[in-house]
Amino acid sequence: MSLALDAAAQDLLFREAQTANTFTDEPVTDEQVQAIYDLVKFGPTAFNQSSLRITLVRSQEARERLVQHAMGANGPKTLSAPLTAILSVDLDFHEHLPRLFPALPDIKDTFFAEAAAREVAGTQNATLQAGYFIVGIRAAGLAAGPMTGFDFTGVDKEFFGDGKQKSFLVINIGKPGADAFFPRSPRLGFDEAVTSV
Amino acid sequence: MSLALDAAAQDLLFREAQTANTFTDEPVTDEQVQAIYDLVKFGPTAFNQSSLRITLVRSQEARERLVQHAMGANGPKTLSAPLTAILSVDLDFHEHLPRLFPALPDIKDTFFAEAAAREVAGTQNATLQAGYFIVGIRAAGLAAGPMTGFDFTGVDKEFFGDGKQKSFLVINIGKPGADAFFPRSPRLGFDEAVTSV
Repeated sequence: MSLALDAAAQDLLFREAQTANTFTDEPVTDEQVQAIYDLVKFGPTAFNQSSLRITLVRSQEARERLVQHAMGANGPKTLSAPLTAILSVDLDFHEHLPRLFPALPDIKDTFFAEAAAREVAGTQNATLQAGYFIVGIRAAGLAAGPMTGFDFTGVDKEFFGDGKQKSFLVINIGKPGADAFFPRSPRLGFDEAVTSV
Repeated sequence: MSLALDAAAQDLLFREAQTANTFTDEPVTDEQVQAIYDLVKFGPTAFNQSSLRITLVRSQEARERLVQHAMGANGPKTLSAPLTAILSVDLDFHEHLPRLFPALPDIKDTFFAEAAAREVAGTQNATLQAGYFIVGIRAAGLAAGPMTGFDFTGVDKEFFGDGKQKSFLVINIGKPGADAFFPRSPRLGFDEAVTSV
């Protein structure tokens, strides 16, 4: 069974792509990040809520503030990456809904009036968008190194002091360096992950 | 700024792909789903935990049980799709970790010993995998119709009575039918979603 997506694209995005643990010094430009964003922004979210926010950690000072909240090897790894992105949920994403989802102009004040409901939906949809963003990094010919080993409460205090954004993932981005990849780990077989009823 | 991914693949996966609301009768085979799975299983998760489970709703009886828990238009939409998948988190994903992440053979009994920690990490990573799966459906030349408008507690009781799986997304899958697409909604601009520090 062959896919509609060509084999080179399959390799680029999934089959040969791997999480990178080291990077070269080659910079990742804002233009590259914009090209990634302008592709993956089209990935679907519920009511087009588009709750993901991306904070590019560019200055040395910001990088040092970020790695204070890293666990274990994630600190040195992050210091060595040409670009690091903090992915967060905009807990006030509903403010944009009248523009983003004009078909239902009142959901900002109905479905999403409550902060708790926004946090649940916003986190789920920002996480879907994080999946698209990782695919987009690879689409740009770059490697991603996504990390959850951070004290995200600390990251939020450090970068999002107004309490309106909640970080959930940090991604190193760049060209893979020396010994960038661990051996590919096994995946679950189709029959282990997929069942029919 | 151009991406490494060719333009046809960009269109197939993101630029021209849209959430489908109607479908043709053309069946979606297990072989197609396996081809999708065998591509997107390589998408990264923390410690390769691979917590996503996919339940293909194939029988008429199962389809009717599912739509009882659908909200609004999601019921009729789901009845009209050639294939519907329930996406869930395996709350016992840690049982597979000694095989999936042999580099750290003890994390099954350390990091992931507590059910609450598994639920948080498992949900986040299964949601990332849901993003890859939506991209994979499009890679197969099919359209996805992801829906969160279900009573997932009811879906869990109906399909996962043992409490070991927690559903979070339902996706209709097939070839788009007549009037399948709403007009593309606007997306946030780069400067609205991405900031530099």
